[in-house]
Parts: sequence; structure tokens; C-alpha cells
Amino acid sequence: MGSSSSALNFGAGPAKLPREVLEEVQNELLSYNKSGMSIMEMSHRSPEYSKINTDAQAAIRELLNVPDNYMVLFMQGGGVGGFAAVAMNLINRTGTADYIVTGTWSASAAKEAAKYGKVNIVFPKPEKLGDIPETSTWNLNPDASYLYYCDNETVDGIEFPNMPYNPHDVPIVTDMSSSIMTKKVDVSKFGVIFGGAQKNIGPAGVVFVIIREDLLGKPMDICPSILNFTHIYKANSVHNTPATLSVYIMEKVLQWIKKNGGVEGMEKQSLEKSVFLYKAIENSNGFYSSPIDKKMRSRINVPFRVGGPNGDESLEAKFLEEAEKLRMYQLKGHRTVGGMRASLYNAVTLKEVKLLVEFMEEFQNYTLSKSNQTI
Amino acid sequence: MGSSSSALNFGAGPAKLPREVLEEVQNELLSYNKSGMSIMEMSHRSPEYSKINTDAQAAIRELLNVPDNYMVLFMQGGGVGGFAAVAMNLINRTGTADYIVTGTWSASAAKEAAKYGKVNIVFPKPEKLGDIPETSTWNLNPDASYLYYCDNETVDGIEFPNMPYNPHDVPIVTDMSSSIMTKKVDVSKFGVIFGGAQKNIGPAGVVFVIIREDLLGKPMDICPSILNFTHIYKANSVHNTPATLSVYIMEKVLQWIKKNGGVEGMEKQSLEKSVFLYKAIENSNGFYSSPIDKKMRSRINVPFRVGGPNGDESLEAKFLEEAEKLRMYQLKGHRTVGGMRASLYNAVTLKEVKLLVEFMEEFQNYTLSKSNQTI
Repeated sequence: MGSSSSALNFGAGPAKLPREVLEEVQNELLSYNKSGMSIMEMSHRSPEYSKINTDAQAAIRELLNVPDNYMVLFMQGGGVGGFAAVAMNLINRTGTADYIVTGTWSASAAKEAAKYGKVNIVFPKPEKLGDIPETSTWNLNPDASYLYYCDNETVDGIEFPNMPYNPHDVPIVTDMSSSIMTKKVDVSKFGVIFGGAQKNIGPAGVVFVIIREDLLGKPMDICPSILNFTHIYKANSVHNTPATLSVYIMEKVLQWIKKNGGVEGMEKQSLEKSVFLYKAIENSNGFYSSPIDKKMRSRINVPFRVGGPNGDESLEAKFLEEAEKLRMYQLKGHRTVGGMRASLYNAVTLKEVKLLVEFMEEFQNYTLSKSNQTI
Repeated sequence: MGSSSSALNFGAGPAKLPREVLEEVQNELLSYNKSGMSIMEMSHRSPEYSKINTDAQAAIRELLNVPDNYMVLFMQGGGVGGFAAVAMNLINRTGTADYIVTGTWSASAAKEAAKYGKVNIVFPKPEKLGDIPETSTWNLNPDASYLYYCDNETVDGIEFPNMPYNPHDVPIVTDMSSSIMTKKVDVSKFGVIFGGAQKNIGPAGVVFVIIREDLLGKPMDICPSILNFTHIYKANSVHNTPATLSVYIMEKVLQWIKKNGGVEGMEKQSLEKSVFLYKAIENSNGFYSSPIDKKMRSRINVPFRVGGPNGDESLEAKFLEEAEKLRMYQLKGHRTVGGMRASLYNAVTLKEVKLLVEFMEEFQNYTLSKSNQTI
């Protein structure tokens, strides 16, 4: 079960980071590049930090094969900051935007955007999570400034299976907080890809933004400087002091991804891990169950109930308790959803998922044998 | 000159942090509280992070003796994020605000606020930096939502000597990014005290906000959630993922301040350090000079020129080069001001300032003896 000191971390974010990266951070913490200063004690305009900023941008470009007419920006404020920024930078083009709402975070993004323009919800909330209606029923506005969707709903465990239907060819904006660097992406098909780093590529404190050049230059007058993509681009993401420590660690995670097969390697591993876990859920005779329609199940965040499709809350509490005895942590589902959730971000290994499944099988066997005894 | 591995860091921010704090962070980096996980791998809703969030708020309350009717909030976005937030949360009360502009950061705050309401500049830019005009000439608006000033101008080295003249008793808002916890403050006299943590109380990534309760509840409709003080207060500063690592380190710095004499201890040390350095400048027969009027000189950021009142740029380059040989870093003045700047934040010791002054005297003697030889 890994080294004795290390835990199995299935948290949804802030989440597990590669141990090698953390060890490097630890080694350099008191003296970065033999300077006698920690990186967090250095100016964001120092040569040291400037190199980190440049290297992190370059690593994202390389890993995602970002075309030249796209800019890579870093800002603060988390995904929710990104929700406001997207609207304040883009909605001005026509005053309206289309939002595909598939779960918690896209709903939150639509609500935030409605402060800044007309938000058109593309289809009504499906009765069953992840049950996307036929595209022929979608209400798409040809004049939308952009079409927004959340690539992977971290809370609900819903992953959009491909690009959304976009007959009017408006710029597509997507929140990839929890799926970035877990699969290949054709950046050229997007207007904006953004997200918080704290799931697959770093600690909390940084938002990455990949934006097509022609979408810059049209922010609303009321856009705060810290959320103004044009301003941030012109200042090369150091217009004011960034969370330098977070960017520094993110840069190391990006290098770790490069060393470990790049996005292709991460995608392969992501599929293996999620297939293994969903198979175990399917094979449990209903003891474990996924609330999400098969077509839309996330490779990244796997919510499941214990003890039946609606969950047995006392059994779920016991599940968490037993898991923690085995140092398997942060398996509790989001407070708005309940049940369990295993997040399988890039730093989580297939071996760790196998250990989780092993525990799930043992827990099921033990529970069923005990209930047989009781009967 | 301290331990051989450690540098003398006079940077303006991100800046020197207490070595003991960095060592603690290093020790805990791979396993926080024996969990086998780094604090940066834990949810912002975990019991561990919740305690850090609560403890950091409590430490600020204790250190500054914050009255019960004031709230302590944390957000992201740096001081510049704070500029927008202040206006979007407060200017709505009457639509207008008074700004005292004494340097770079208050000018930037006024510019940001003008996006959200009418900004009244209280007096025109003085010809000499730090030369504040008579209060009888101040143009104060009795209907201002608030009166804004920057307590310490980090770039220019100007510290406001006391509370600003406020005959209409409007709420006073102040940016204390570079002066927080360097002196006692009567919080009850303020509407809002805010600032970035990355100078005196932590690494970059956190903005602290101390706000009087009755000023909450009136944000503009267009205020992004991440800058909405009311929203942040209701969610106890974890409405979305904060830069958890930065808050965690800030909490440790706050405990370090408590252990080291509290704000009183920091104030005493701050006075000793700055008096020592300014005396050396005054006693240099004009070889070193401060551009700031004596009444307004900052205890925290000390800009000075080398080789005359307008500086001798080649001598200043040489000064920086020689300083770096002695491992004295980040002494270069802000790019918009030029010259030198020594920042004397809480983690900088009197001993380190004495070493700087020793070097300054040696550099002066060497330069003058060399110039005599040349003649």
C-alpha cells in the first residue's frame, strides 16, 4: 500500500500530487537554486520566478500542442473567478452567451455569467443526471458570444463525451479544471479552455487560461484588472503578484507529466483506472452503484453509493471509517450529493485504484456475511 | 552574516519569511499532522484546513485586538484584487468615494475604483513625493461612501504618519499590504483594512480583509463572487478553493509574530531597524539620499539613491553587484522609481540591517578613496 508514511488520497481537490514533485519542493524549500532564499521569498519579477512563469507556459503549450494563435495565461481566483472572467471578457461581443448545464459547476458558471449579460440555457435540467437530451431539441443562439460547457463535472461525476453540438460555429468555452492533462485535446477547436490547477496539475492558487488571440481585447469596462484576460496577457501574467509558490509547484507537476508519457500517458492511465473501478462497481450485484448514465460517466471523478442505488447512509459511514483505517482518504462525496466519490487524478496510480477495489470487495463480502449471520 | 546557507533578503515582496516558519513548512511538507498527505493535497473543507482557516482568523483578531463587530476574511487576487473589491463592495452606498493619492498603489486603487463609481481625488499630486498639502486645502466629500488611503506606499517608501483628516466621519478604508502587523492599529477607527499577505505575514496568494460588519451587505450586482465580501463572509472564506498552501503558511507566520512579542514587538523592532538605516543615510554626507520628505518616510520600505540626490546609475549598478557578493539580495528599487530600496519587513532582523549599513559604509569609503586616487 505504498510507503508506510504515504496515504492513498482520492480527494476531489486540492488533491494528490506526485510524490517526486513534493520531495523536490521540500528539498528546495529553504534555498531555491542555491540562493539561500525560498522561491516564495523572491519577487515575482525576479529572474528566477520569470523563468518559472515562462517554463510553465511553455510546458502547457508543449503538452497540449497549443497553436501559436492561442495565449496561455495564469490568474488567481479559482474556477469561480474564471466563471466571472469568462463572461466579463467575452460576453460583450453580442451581450449574450449559451450555457450547457450538466451539473453543479456549469450551473454555477451560468449564474455568475448572468451578472454580465443574457445567459441562454441550452436545455432544461435533465431528470436523471448525465441524461443529455437530443441535440435537435437544443436551444442554441446563433448570436451567442460563446457556447459554454463544463468538460468534467467534479461534483457530479459527469464527463462530456465529446465536443458539444455547435451548428452556428460560435467560440466554445470550456471549464477543464478536473480533466485538463488527462486526455488529448484539439485546442484549435476551442475559444477558451480554463480551469483551476488544483486537481491534475498543481496545488490551489492558480487558474490557467488558454485563449484564442482574437477573443482578447473586448473586456467589459467593469472588468477588474485581475480578471481581465487582455490586461493579464499584456503583462505576461505578472501584472500583480501571483500566488508564486503555487505556480512554481504547478510548473514541476507539468514537467512530471512530460516525463511520464505526456498527456497520452496520462490518458492511457486514466482510462485503465476508471475502467477498473467502474467494472468493480458493475460487478458488485448492486452493492455499489453509479448514479450516472453510462455514456456520461467521468473517468476522473467516480461517485458511487454503497448498499443500493440510493445508498445506505450508515453503511457509507462505516465504509469511510474502514477505508481510513487503511489510510484511504477523502473518499466522501460532495456535501450536496452524498455517497462516495473516488477522484482519479493524474497523480493517483492504477495500483492505488486496485487497492481501493480490493478494499471495496472485502467490505462488500464482510457486510454481506455479517448480514447473513444476523438473518 | 547569518548561517552560510542563508541570504540577506531585502526584497519588497514576495519577501523574507521567518526561517523557523520555512523549516516547519519543510518538515511537514510530505505529511501534515502524520496524515501521509501534504496540506496542499487536502480539501479546503477538510477538518485540517478548516482549523488552519479558523486559527489564522483568530490570530489576526488576537494580534490586532479586532473588535467583535469586525469580520476577518481571506480572498485571492492580491492587493489589486482588493482595490476592485473595495469599490464593488462599498461605493454603492452613495456612488462616490474619496481617494487620497500618495504614490503608486493608491493611484492604482483610485483608477480601479473609477470603474465602479465616482472617484474624488482629495488633493492634486504633490510636486515632491510625500509632501502632503495642508488639510484645509483637502477636497473631502461629506457624501463619500468611504475615504481611501494607502497606509504605506511600498514602491515609493511613503508611510502615512497617522489617520487621515476625516471631518465628515465617513468610513476609512486603508491598504496595509506592507505595514500590517508592523505597528499597533486601532481597528475600531477603520471601515476596512485590507492587503496582500506577501510582505509581513506570509507568501503571495492571500488577501486579508478586516471589515466592519455594517459595511457588508451592499455589494454591486456586478461584483464577482470571489470579490464579494458579503459572500465570502457567509462562506467563512471557503466559498471556493482558496490558495490553501498560502493560508497555511500565513497562519504559521502569524503564530511566529505572537511568539515574538506580537505587534508591539514587531513595532519596536521596525522602529529600531528604520531609524538605524535612515541615520546611516543622513550621516553619509549626501553619498546616500532618501527622496522622501522626513515626515512621511516609511519604516518599512526605504528607497535611497547612491552617489547624489538623483543617483549615479553606474555607481548604483556597482552597489547592487557588490551587495550580491555579500549575499544581500533584492535591493533594487522598483522599476518605475529606480535607485535602491531596502524593505525591512518583520522577518528582517536588526542584525541584518546593521550588516547592510556596514556594507553601505564600506562601499562609500571604497568609492570615495578610489575617486580620490583617480583625481
